[in-house]
Amino acid sequence: MAAQEKHIVTSSSARSAVIKLFIRLLTVQELIDRDHHVSILVSTASIFITPGDISAAKFEVYPVPFTKEEFDSLITDIIKLWWNNKPTTPTFHKFYQELGKLMEKANKLNRQMCEAVLSNQELMFKLKEAKYDVLLSDPVTICGDLIALKLNIPFLYTLRFTPASTVERHCGKIPAPPSYVPAALSELTDRLSFGERIKNIISYHIQDYVFQKYWGKWDSYYSQVLGRPTTLCETMGKAEIWLIRTYWDLEFPRPFLPNFEFVGGLHCQPAKPLPEEMEDFVQSSGEHGIVVFSLGSMVQNLTDEKNNIIASALSQLPQKVIWRYKGKKLDMLGANTRTYDWIPQNDLLGHAKTKAFITHGGTNGIYEAIYHGIPMVGIPMFADQTDNILHMKAKGMAVELNIHTMKTEDLVDAVNTVIHNALFKKNARRISQIHHDQPIKPLDRAVFWIEFVMRHKGAKHLRAAAYHLTWYQYHCLDVIAFLIGCTVIFAFIAFKCGSYCFWKCGNILQKSKTD
Amino acid sequence: MAAQEKHIVTSSSARSAVIKLFIRLLTVQELIDRDHHVSILVSTASIFITPGDISAAKFEVYPVPFTKEEFDSLITDIIKLWWNNKPTTPTFHKFYQELGKLMEKANKLNRQMCEAVLSNQELMFKLKEAKYDVLLSDPVTICGDLIALKLNIPFLYTLRFTPASTVERHCGKIPAPPSYVPAALSELTDRLSFGERIKNIISYHIQDYVFQKYWGKWDSYYSQVLGRPTTLCETMGKAEIWLIRTYWDLEFPRPFLPNFEFVGGLHCQPAKPLPEEMEDFVQSSGEHGIVVFSLGSMVQNLTDEKNNIIASALSQLPQKVIWRYKGKKLDMLGANTRTYDWIPQNDLLGHAKTKAFITHGGTNGIYEAIYHGIPMVGIPMFADQTDNILHMKAKGMAVELNIHTMKTEDLVDAVNTVIHNALFKKNARRISQIHHDQPIKPLDRAVFWIEFVMRHKGAKHLRAAAYHLTWYQYHCLDVIAFLIGCTVIFAFIAFKCGSYCFWKCGNILQKSKTD
Repeated sequence: MAAQEKHIVTSSSARSAVIKLFIRLLTVQELIDRDHHVSILVSTASIFITPGDISAAKFEVYPVPFTKEEFDSLITDIIKLWWNNKPTTPTFHKFYQELGKLMEKANKLNRQMCEAVLSNQELMFKLKEAKYDVLLSDPVTICGDLIALKLNIPFLYTLRFTPASTVERHCGKIPAPPSYVPAALSELTDRLSFGERIKNIISYHIQDYVFQKYWGKWDSYYSQVLGRPTTLCETMGKAEIWLIRTYWDLEFPRPFLPNFEFVGGLHCQPAKPLPEEMEDFVQSSGEHGIVVFSLGSMVQNLTDEKNNIIASALSQLPQKVIWRYKGKKLDMLGANTRTYDWIPQNDLLGHAKTKAFITHGGTNGIYEAIYHGIPMVGIPMFADQTDNILHMKAKGMAVELNIHTMKTEDLVDAVNTVIHNALFKKNARRISQIHHDQPIKPLDRAVFWIEFVMRHKGAKHLRAAAYHLTWYQYHCLDVIAFLIGCTVIFAFIAFKCGSYCFWKCGNILQKSKTD
Repeated sequence: MAAQEKHIVTSSSARSAVIKLFIRLLTVQELIDRDHHVSILVSTASIFITPGDISAAKFEVYPVPFTKEEFDSLITDIIKLWWNNKPTTPTFHKFYQELGKLMEKANKLNRQMCEAVLSNQELMFKLKEAKYDVLLSDPVTICGDLIALKLNIPFLYTLRFTPASTVERHCGKIPAPPSYVPAALSELTDRLSFGERIKNIISYHIQDYVFQKYWGKWDSYYSQVLGRPTTLCETMGKAEIWLIRTYWDLEFPRPFLPNFEFVGGLHCQPAKPLPEEMEDFVQSSGEHGIVVFSLGSMVQNLTDEKNNIIASALSQLPQKVIWRYKGKKLDMLGANTRTYDWIPQNDLLGHAKTKAFITHGGTNGIYEAIYHGIPMVGIPMFADQTDNILHMKAKGMAVELNIHTMKTEDLVDAVNTVIHNALFKKNARRISQIHHDQPIKPLDRAVFWIEFVMRHKGAKHLRAAAYHLTWYQYHCLDVIAFLIGCTVIFAFIAFKCGSYCFWKCGNILQKSKTD
């Protein structure tokens, strides 16, 4: 690899992308460690990545006509909506109505970001002059692909998922038989009953409708920018490689194409030593060990009552508990529990004393638990967290609780179950082995394919011919229509010939009788 | 890896399996090099692998009630049939009629082989006692899976292809959209016109019928041996991993499942020095270089006339030619051409002087040409050779000739084209780069997954839930029927309600009129 190769990374600014960005930053760091020059394209309103986050990377900051606060409020609104409704309950139409409005707003900000880059002639000239080799983008924030095409360089996607895999299916062309591939966000596993298969098919169709309604609005913009009739989906289909941030430890096996690489857990690393004070506390747990508890950085709106229910439950455990918690002091907090604004989660999960992990089910934390083989109690909040916990539950590595209905004893029971029922630890070890026992590590695989695209100016040999077909050609609807047409014509001719013969025979018979 | 781990390899005895066996032997050698104990199960009638072929492997030889000669004549008959007919010409029904008879015979011998192992109590006891960790089998010869189940050990498949991927699709559950995945043996590429898509769909259906007709006969035998109702296909679906002996250098990208690994070219190795006499002849070629010519080991029935056409063409080339040829001396043989009973093909293709390869298109030779980046002139004879050459032609690395219609000047032109049109060499280099530029080598990948199955007693985490569904559940036909039923009932009720309202309104109107 020449040390002079450069590549460019666009930054997503959606709140939900915080974990994705974290993972991408590790990929970026790995590329830098391998002597690549990396630039990160970031807006002035970006809240998750700011210049200086990776000292060796170059940041290209471009102005946008909105503030960080506008983004923040949008994310808060989405979390609140999910908190009060669910996409899979009988009130799902209300959920989608509200979500629609928020998506309109997100779409508007996304468009402004896109225009802020493409119409910034100075920036575009600078990017062109820098002669980057490749662009890495998360398609959840739209536009990376368009920038790559304007710069005339190949691009790769890094993606966790889109709802019901709409983008992966329609633009990435991977098949998803609804009989055993659960639609992402449908809260289903891969073992579907008759009723669940109906629900799954409906989930796919709802998300297809949502995708067409909101993402479809980009088609005319893409056509205008590229100066030829095209669609968002057609452009997305030009991604050389799709780096999917899961693997068959978390995900259920499903069909995919050769340009899809499953690199889940690429951010996981062996545990580093804990801060001294924390290590002392952990060691004081004796043979009972510790429980690590985090509901992530995005949920800070639990009521005091709920927090006290949790604190009370934790106080009843024989283990010591390390709780990532930011709020006022809780009355029910036990002597065995310490709260921290921030915790070194990976290092804690990798600690020999750790017995269980209470988590909201973010992909990041789930993968750290898988990496270190720690059974989980899942309390999912929103987005893909319910799906994640459900997958871990199906694989025998987690117990699930409902944050809305959970009582003190439920949490106590759940933690005791995952610690004392040996099956959970056994399954956690098995899943961890699956994660570790791969021909090469996920991070190395991700970097290999990024470098491959740089070396060969793409990865065309992995692209299925499906990308060249229209939707009706893909499903052979034209062939089916033709064959049905032929059958009908053949049947019609056969019927007419038969009728004629019958009539003729009848005539002959009648004639012979009258003779 | 413990050095004490053992595994077992069953041997195919079909003539067409010679290349497969060669490749499998390399996998076996690699396993032995990694300190595994390997046993090869082989019948007394085996013609392609005999005790001693790999000195470090143990051979378990079992008697069968037929001779090597019977096998040989069957293979010769199949080659003759293919030579005189083609499965894709208008006379294909004649081809399939004849092929059907030969398949019946092959099926009978296969059944006898299977029974010879399973009913050999002494052998089965010995195999059980040896406590093997894994069984590796080519599913083209049926029974390996059954032996594994009886021994209660996991098994893997190593497979080039089955016609129209019937086994991979129906038993392995990989999707194959007929709009861009050409049916194996259909002689189509992945870029299909409207007419070709019709041909492709028909190809799939013909092979499905053939599969059901001949392979379906094993269902009752499998049920009887396993002592429960089952099918051949269901049993085959229990393979932990499918090692497919192609990659995206030769194959067109298509969907697959996580338990499919594409390890094409795993037998390829850097060239070793040539025998001295051959090296001297090669060096005497000067700047023109050499052409390597082999139609494989299985075709020895070209007429003298055809051989003289070839010899005459070769004599007109400025290159020196090394021809693998076994037969009587040819009148037209030029001074630039030397014939050999056997040639070190891989070493010749890897020689710096080699400019082109004239080949029948066997997968083995094709992969050696890909490995060394040598453009080809393809003269396909039978089986998958036409498909192989077509793929290489579509990828710009080969020119195709028809053995039946080929004239002297056609061969001269074809060789000159692949040597002097720089595009062929450029494409050959590109495809070779694709082959070499993988995260890990195909042989290492194959061995990794065999060892994985040994370590974990299977690879269940890679198995899609599709294996648990019936065919109508897989295609959601029950759900579709239910939804159509609901729609019809709903429409009927709506119609009846509408009719009733209409009738009621009519009555009221009439009544008000009469009032």
